[in-house]
Amino acid sequence: MKLRHWLPWLDWGRQYNRTTAAQDGLAAVIVTLMLIPQSLAYAMLAGLPPVTGLYASILPLLAYALFGSSRALAVGPVAVVSLMTAAALGPLFPAGSAEYIGAAMLLALLSGVILSLMAVLRLGFLANFLSHPVISGFISASGILIAVGQLKHIFGVSGSGGNLLQISSSLWQSLPQIHLQTLLIGLLSLAWLWWARSRLKPLLQHLGLGAGMAGNLTKAGPVLAIITAILVVTVLQLDDSGVKVVGVIPQGLPGMMTPTLDLQLAIVLLPAALLISLVGFVESVSVGQTLAAKRRQRIEPDSELLGLGAANLSAAFSGGYPVTGGFARSVVNYDAGAQTPMAGVFTAAGIGLSVMLLTPLLHNLPQAVLAATIIIAVLSLVDLESLKRTWRYSRPDGAAQAATLLGVLLIGVEAGILLGVGLSLMLFLWRTSQPHMAVVGQVPGSEHFRNIERFAVVESPDVLSLRVDESLYFPNSRYLEERIAELIAARPQVRHLVLMCPGVNLIDASALDSLENIVERLRTAGVQLHLSEVKGPVMDQLKRSSFLQDFGGQVFISQFQALQTLSPQIALDTLKQGAHIAHLPTQLERQAP
Amino acid sequence: MKLRHWLPWLDWGRQYNRTTAAQDGLAAVIVTLMLIPQSLAYAMLAGLPPVTGLYASILPLLAYALFGSSRALAVGPVAVVSLMTAAALGPLFPAGSAEYIGAAMLLALLSGVILSLMAVLRLGFLANFLSHPVISGFISASGILIAVGQLKHIFGVSGSGGNLLQISSSLWQSLPQIHLQTLLIGLLSLAWLWWARSRLKPLLQHLGLGAGMAGNLTKAGPVLAIITAILVVTVLQLDDSGVKVVGVIPQGLPGMMTPTLDLQLAIVLLPAALLISLVGFVESVSVGQTLAAKRRQRIEPDSELLGLGAANLSAAFSGGYPVTGGFARSVVNYDAGAQTPMAGVFTAAGIGLSVMLLTPLLHNLPQAVLAATIIIAVLSLVDLESLKRTWRYSRPDGAAQAATLLGVLLIGVEAGILLGVGLSLMLFLWRTSQPHMAVVGQVPGSEHFRNIERFAVVESPDVLSLRVDESLYFPNSRYLEERIAELIAARPQVRHLVLMCPGVNLIDASALDSLENIVERLRTAGVQLHLSEVKGPVMDQLKRSSFLQDFGGQVFISQFQALQTLSPQIALDTLKQGAHIAHLPTQLERQAP
Repeated sequence: MKLRHWLPWLDWGRQYNRTTAAQDGLAAVIVTLMLIPQSLAYAMLAGLPPVTGLYASILPLLAYALFGSSRALAVGPVAVVSLMTAAALGPLFPAGSAEYIGAAMLLALLSGVILSLMAVLRLGFLANFLSHPVISGFISASGILIAVGQLKHIFGVSGSGGNLLQISSSLWQSLPQIHLQTLLIGLLSLAWLWWARSRLKPLLQHLGLGAGMAGNLTKAGPVLAIITAILVVTVLQLDDSGVKVVGVIPQGLPGMMTPTLDLQLAIVLLPAALLISLVGFVESVSVGQTLAAKRRQRIEPDSELLGLGAANLSAAFSGGYPVTGGFARSVVNYDAGAQTPMAGVFTAAGIGLSVMLLTPLLHNLPQAVLAATIIIAVLSLVDLESLKRTWRYSRPDGAAQAATLLGVLLIGVEAGILLGVGLSLMLFLWRTSQPHMAVVGQVPGSEHFRNIERFAVVESPDVLSLRVDESLYFPNSRYLEERIAELIAARPQVRHLVLMCPGVNLIDASALDSLENIVERLRTAGVQLHLSEVKGPVMDQLKRSSFLQDFGGQVFISQFQALQTLSPQIALDTLKQGAHIAHLPTQLERQAP
Repeated sequence: MKLRHWLPWLDWGRQYNRTTAAQDGLAAVIVTLMLIPQSLAYAMLAGLPPVTGLYASILPLLAYALFGSSRALAVGPVAVVSLMTAAALGPLFPAGSAEYIGAAMLLALLSGVILSLMAVLRLGFLANFLSHPVISGFISASGILIAVGQLKHIFGVSGSGGNLLQISSSLWQSLPQIHLQTLLIGLLSLAWLWWARSRLKPLLQHLGLGAGMAGNLTKAGPVLAIITAILVVTVLQLDDSGVKVVGVIPQGLPGMMTPTLDLQLAIVLLPAALLISLVGFVESVSVGQTLAAKRRQRIEPDSELLGLGAANLSAAFSGGYPVTGGFARSVVNYDAGAQTPMAGVFTAAGIGLSVMLLTPLLHNLPQAVLAATIIIAVLSLVDLESLKRTWRYSRPDGAAQAATLLGVLLIGVEAGILLGVGLSLMLFLWRTSQPHMAVVGQVPGSEHFRNIERFAVVESPDVLSLRVDESLYFPNSRYLEERIAELIAARPQVRHLVLMCPGVNLIDASALDSLENIVERLRTAGVQLHLSEVKGPVMDQLKRSSFLQDFGGQVFISQFQALQTLSPQIALDTLKQGAHIAHLPTQLERQAP
């Protein structure tokens, strides 16, 4: 049972048969066609030789199939993670150099170790640090940054930079060196891909093809662009006239390679690896969950961590770079009928075959075409509407999203994401640091206690009843101290303070310290603290401290019991005042000002 | 009114009279006597010339009196902040050099700016990042680190280091160079101070002095040690035989000095300045609150920020270093009868007079005596019992405290505190990432809905009712998605999911995204989402998004109304089953397993 938890294929493998294999096989063919140009392009985006992208699409897919729980997730190089890889390694080594490639593998190794550790130590909750607005701002900014960064390949110039300002100024400066033939190829590719994305499927359907077939052919649009471009370059010998092509791609499967095993470098890369792991995991899980839900299946976050961890580890030792589950590719995989991760195994076989057979044919593939496929792919990531929606819905969340977006664009990938995470944590702390607390009084004719500001209730002059509508923990423990100091300073006649705790699910050590401080301070001011309506688990935990012995007050079952004990005359008088228990609160409710 | 908020002396200044002045004056005399050795010692601890401590005890006290709201807080150099100053500057410049002094003033400047900005932008809640276990672990570790670090002065050797390992090994290596006369002076001072602290007051009372007078004389114990030591050194000319003395202290008030205004250095020091500001603020506010509560007064956190900010800014321009409110000193101030911050003004005058008149007399003061006063003072900060208590009370809080303590001791001051803050945030996220959710069913004979695992309730087969007992926000939004996916995957017959939200006080943008994902996924699985018992403010916020139009379900006033609409037969049948509404839940409650 334990083993089954970690090896999901023990489940689906038992019912695997020829029908499923056929469905998985068909999906694999389509995904392979989509993955070849993508993996070449994303490797280029990551600053790596194109073959790295192919290598990262073989073993990692097998590794994910062993441990991952999603039936339809297609793992491999993706745009955002490629950008993060480039951002992490760009400042350290020249792109494409042996050190750079070794460091990319090290990054995959670190990422694999982090993800596997998160799986084993059940640390998946760490991904919660990346709130949706942060992720969304980051993805949009990445899309813009990637698209603008690829323009240099379209223009046939060189340029670099870690943020929008650097990239733009580098582009601007090299604009005079624009290479016209490259530009033409790039623009034509962009136009074709753009058109194919939106118009090809309806056209094919109009020509009589079935919706599924038309959709699958549309997905192969980039492949057609690539074949055409290779033919054109070869026939016109454009590579001799300066059109940059992919060049020699080593033929054959990757051998066992080891990443740069340099502790110093590993420490430098650790923050980037952590961010890559978290972002990759969040993206992957969200796709996996969406696809699983469609068939009422489930994915296991722990298995996903392990699957992605294994995928990255195998990328690290087979000449790849960090990988994760890709959104578009997984949807294509699902739509094409993939039933199990075996589709990934078949895809890996497809890519393996391509590496062995097709790479010589890719020599004359112009970089501008790859850049065009990247640009068209990432523009769908940019969603500035979402920023507007978030801002309208919630100012703090909108601010976090805007900060992440601008941070990534103007400072850099890592700085931007850290800015967003920091800001959303700060805003979260700010939001939870002032929980709702209400001074309550007794509803006449009942044993109920309600907010004195909203109901016509009776207060005892020497007993202050305060209801706390939130757990007491470190973000709000200081506020509790301040609020009580304020209330007591304003009511010199009070002798007892009853803290009514029906909404308190937790009292952490900070809040316990605060309560002890409060007891101490109240005592010197001649006031005794009591508690009422404390939940069972909270009482259990309080019993593990000496608070209940030392605080000198009582713990009452109900607020009414507290009043009955501390101020019996008023409690009973108020109770006798009427008997309309059920409806009184609404009748008594004061009009909102 | 606005001005009165920022200048608390407009309040207390109006009733200021001769009686209050006399009380403040007496307190000031006692605090001055205590402050002279402390400020010399803490400056030494911070790696600064002794006079810096005196300078930091003049203008900052006046500045705090202008803006601070605590009536009894005594501001000036304190042990923990001095240690943090040394930790921040030690790796950058040789202790005591002109660069070091300028950087210390810059640190005070940064700290002053940060605190003032926090006051104006109302960012006091940022101090909540420092949970009580982190603060407590940090203070204990600081005490140990400071005490061990001062041993070199007792032994008369040199040594340095940023953590316990470095300090110990440096001490160990220089042990052969031990200076016996210095050691003798140090040990005698330690013994006297230790004895005076615990035994002097009872003895004096036994000799017939009043408790107050005896207490005040005891506080002057360090002064007696200092006078004796100076006399001994002077008479025996011990400074010629190698006992290190304070040496020449410039006479006269500090002139206007500017800190090193170096942007590069400021950026390097910023994290340290931020931590110093937060730690100083937390310590200061906690003392201030305790003392204010004793007289049913209040302190204003914003005024405290501004007061401490002004104090640090004035320290920056008068040759001082970062200051804050000191615990022991403030208690002495309060006990000696200080009524208003005017006591601080008088204390500043006292220190000013000392700088003008007494500094030549301090030339022969042995550093070993100052080290002894520090050691005795900081040992009271070490509270390892607290670690045990916290661990017993709550494992996560105990872990955060232990990590801070060990981090500070073994790695260093800043790394330790960041480790603790990071760990407590992680544990907090972990704790809140899995909120309590219960599948609920209808209590027979009532319109009540309770947890199906705890009550014998009736469930409709095609309506799943899920109660969420927590606000929905980014730490738990992913959990919500997972939990619902799990529940729906396990119940193929379900057609409606009703999310019962009486405990939801907030739905942030992350949770809104998650809800939209959930709606989408449920829809593909043939399930419709509904909401019930949504609070007013949450509804208002939801209306600012398109969720309510798009989600396709209904928002019900009550869970019963939801069932009545979605599964009318079952709801009514269950309602008719009995009429013991009030008592049924308890009767029905299942025995805990």
